[in-house]
Amino acid sequence: MVVADDFYFSGLNKPGNTSNAVGSNVTTVNVNNLPGLNTLGISAVRVDYKPNGLNPPHTHPRATEILVVLEGTLFVGFVTSNPGNKLFTKYLNPGDVFVFPEGLIHFQLNVGKTNAIAFAGLSSQNPGVITIAKAVFGSEPTIDPNVLAMAFQVEKNMIDSLLQAQSD
Amino acid sequence: MVVADDFYFSGLNKPGNTSNAVGSNVTTVNVNNLPGLNTLGISAVRVDYKPNGLNPPHTHPRATEILVVLEGTLFVGFVTSNPGNKLFTKYLNPGDVFVFPEGLIHFQLNVGKTNAIAFAGLSSQNPGVITIAKAVFGSEPTIDPNVLAMAFQVEKNMIDSLLQAQSD
Amino acid sequence: MVVADDFYFSGLNKPGNTSNAVGSNVTTVNVNNLPGLNTLGISAVRVDYKPNGLNPPHTHPRATEILVVLEGTLFVGFVTSNPGNKLFTKYLNPGDVFVFPEGLIHFQLNVGKTNAIAFAGLSSQNPGVITIAKAVFGSEPTIDPNVLAMAFQVEKNMIDSLLQAQSD
Amino acid sequence: MVVADDFYFSGLNKPGNTSNAVGSNVTTVNVNNLPGLNTLGISAVRVDYKPNGLNPPHTHPRATEILVVLEGTLFVGFVTSNPGNKLFTKYLNPGDVFVFPEGLIHFQLNVGKTNAIAFAGLSSQNPGVITIAKAVFGSEPTIDPNVLAMAFQVEKNMIDSLLQAQSD
Amino acid sequence: MVVADDFYFSGLNKPGNTSNAVGSNVTTVNVNNLPGLNTLGISAVRVDYKPNGLNPPHTHPRATEILVVLEGTLFVGFVTSNPGNKLFTKYLNPGDVFVFPEGLIHFQLNVGKTNAIAFAGLSSQNPGVITIAKAVFGSEPTIDPNVLAMAFQVEKNMIDSLLQAQSD
Amino acid sequence: MVVADDFYFSGLNKPGNTSNAVGSNVTTVNVNNLPGLNTLGISAVRVDYKPNGLNPPHTHPRATEILVVLEGTLFVGFVTSNPGNKLFTKYLNPGDVFVFPEGLIHFQLNVGKTNAIAFAGLSSQNPGVITIAKAVFGSEPTIDPNVLAMAFQVEKNMIDSLLQAQSD
Repeated sequence: MVVADDFYFSGLNKPGNTSNAVGSNVTTVNVNNLPGLNTLGISAVRVDYKPNGLNPPHTHPRATEILVVLEGTLFVGFVTSNPGNKLFTKYLNPGDVFVFPEGLIHFQLNVGKTNAIAFAGLSSQNPGVITIAKAVFGSEPTIDPNVLAMAFQVEKNMIDSLLQAQSD
Repeated sequence: MVVADDFYFSGLNKPGNTSNAVGSNVTTVNVNNLPGLNTLGISAVRVDYKPNGLNPPHTHPRATEILVVLEGTLFVGFVTSNPGNKLFTKYLNPGDVFVFPEGLIHFQLNVGKTNAIAFAGLSSQNPGVITIAKAVFGSEPTIDPNVLAMAFQVEKNMIDSLLQAQSD
Repeated sequence: MVVADDFYFSGLNKPGNTSNAVGSNVTTVNVNNLPGLNTLGISAVRVDYKPNGLNPPHTHPRATEILVVLEGTLFVGFVTSNPGNKLFTKYLNPGDVFVFPEGLIHFQLNVGKTNAIAFAGLSSQNPGVITIAKAVFGSEPTIDPNVLAMAFQVEKNMIDSLLQAQSD
Repeated sequence: MVVADDFYFSGLNKPGNTSNAVGSNVTTVNVNNLPGLNTLGISAVRVDYKPNGLNPPHTHPRATEILVVLEGTLFVGFVTSNPGNKLFTKYLNPGDVFVFPEGLIHFQLNVGKTNAIAFAGLSSQNPGVITIAKAVFGSEPTIDPNVLAMAFQVEKNMIDSLLQAQSD
Repeated sequence: MVVADDFYFSGLNKPGNTSNAVGSNVTTVNVNNLPGLNTLGISAVRVDYKPNGLNPPHTHPRATEILVVLEGTLFVGFVTSNPGNKLFTKYLNPGDVFVFPEGLIHFQLNVGKTNAIAFAGLSSQNPGVITIAKAVFGSEPTIDPNVLAMAFQVEKNMIDSLLQAQSD
Repeated sequence: MVVADDFYFSGLNKPGNTSNAVGSNVTTVNVNNLPGLNTLGISAVRVDYKPNGLNPPHTHPRATEILVVLEGTLFVGFVTSNPGNKLFTKYLNPGDVFVFPEGLIHFQLNVGKTNAIAFAGLSSQNPGVITIAKAVFGSEPTIDPNVLAMAFQVEKNMIDSLLQAQSD
């Protein structure tokens, strides 16, 4: 029996806990906690950033994101695919909107002196999130350090440091 | 030449002008004013409501909507299709999220004593909006009053009043 | 075990019963009574109209409709979305075809002196039908009359009449 | 400037000319002669059959078809894909509906003593039609007879007859 | 529990058995034997051809095919839909790529003196294959020979031969 | 005027030049060099790897990939999205097939003593490729090193080395 609560979620007014390594937090509202979204092709998130907080480079494998700044000042960007790898960036203030096209690597940095808040819509009921640092250097199990050393063209001891950083 | 500004829109921090008959205002961000949304299947809106303001019954012919309340208290609802025509409603406070499935008639009413604000994502770059009262009683040219009288099962003079109300 | 009957439906030759308030009747063939349509993105209907009969303003939330007139003369129309709310109309005779784009409000009125019949294809296995009068004034439960009064910009007693008309 | 006529087509009441080798005729209404169908995912046809007339085995590469019989009695069928190649058939009378799933080979034969008429909806604005006999034995230029002889496992002189039959 | 083997298939290095009437063999990798393809819209095949071997005229009702020649020389072609029925052909050598658009009839013939091998990707997790000769003349049960005689415009005894050839 | 060459591409038999930092090379066949793929939802690539060559971690923002090994032995893997970041890996030999789901980070490493070759199909006419190292540390212009230091939780001098490595 379908009821109104199947289309309802509560709590996006609550700041996420940004006491973590990157100083940001994403609260996700998708088909997993809002079942009425099933087959409907959309979901939403709230992102909190403390000063200097970063929503680190990540992709959504199945969705475009449209982000609106509520509070604070964000520096945002995304990188286009090969061969250009062109970085598009913008400083965003409250009321500013920015689009991160499907599958492209993007980030937001709080460059203001106060907390920042953004809301975003995503074009999938289950967009997925791939945080690049975690997926590349913090997977379970770990990607072979030799693979990573060649991929990033650096010494293996530097890769070990990157792996160590994600395992902490 | 694509530039960062193609993915940028400014102004959703500004309250819309709610000095109108229904006491609400929708500020739209879609492919028409944010060209970077082209082919990407998403858009966004800000809705302002003065106390007792109503975003009147309407549909989006090409999109589902996920709405987040920022300020105030909204009474929201949508009606399912035939034969049920079941009304699903909910009172929403800041941080509450509600889904209006694609093509269904829905509305939001500010039932608080202060202004209310909501942001929403929509699953189309160009969702379209059909305000029922305007489309049915305020079209250009007008739908034949006899058609409307039969559709709504009321006397034609009542239809004339409804048509007159939308033409003001 | 799939059999030929899964792709078969019988009875669209039978006139629908138009002895009702609007003088029209829609016989629906969709995935609910023709299971072979599953995943295939199409369905069909027969519409009967007695003289002066009306298929009242409605939308299909998930489908475009292509209608062919078999018998009689229909006056048909659809209304575009905001801000235009432009009414497109046409008189249709047997053999005439008209398109009602996805999600737009449309209607057909029998303006001839005899019964009329139309067949239509719809671009979904389950298009849904939202009869505007029923969804707005005949939902279960009823939409708050104050909401409707503001939406349609008329006195509440007129809304009460509209609600009463749909509850009969 | 969009006008109502962009959504209008006239003439499906006129019988198609069935004075041809197979005794059937298809009148097509798609985006090429009804421009309002653009992007809307549907189209329609009228099929006429004289007694013993055949709409010969064909496929629609981009659409499912839902067919309604208006007059006469049809024997219809479609064949499933490899490895089953199962033939599903049905006798259809006026008011009967049958579905031909996307891309499958299907046919209709008038098995009654009078002309037959059917209308059909197709799930594409431009479904395409591939008449098997024409595409295989009547292409321009001709498929190498040796290819066809091996494909159909018959002598080349029989292929020559089949090619000749389609070129007449 | 999802495991790596759900995304793995083994054996496309093995030549298919071409000791059959047409001298070709297709090894299929789709969602039925590689479950990780579910919802992902792609699949693959290996095709082996002995000298003079033919992958006979067929369609994929739900997919476009992109074919790469690994070994040998193929003569390939596809036929466009009505009314053109235009045959596009090409001789392909190792490293050559050719596209067979969704739903169109196509074939490949080994015109070299050695075995030929091709790999292909198809734009569906379950493309389906309709071998024209089998579907038309080898269905279970058989399509009425009178239907086929009219479709192909030849004498019924020739149809009987074609049916017999497919039943062997 | 459409011609057969619009559906044809030549050259996938030629080894790509693997004399580069990662020892691999991807030859791409998509709508940009094979125009007949337009709207058809598929493309293909050849990948060459010298011994110890790596197709470094990357994503396709708009496609799933199905890969077939032709020669050599590859160690392949992909990482699932948050929060699992689970690494799925497999050793692949000639004839082995592996699937990299849409948008997920994946890689292939030649672990054999000889050159390796793979062909792959991708479920888009224009899948895009995002090489993680290039997009994150080699974009034009560069992502702010402080952003990257926080994202990867390492000292800024290590980021400088990573940036330097990609700029060489």
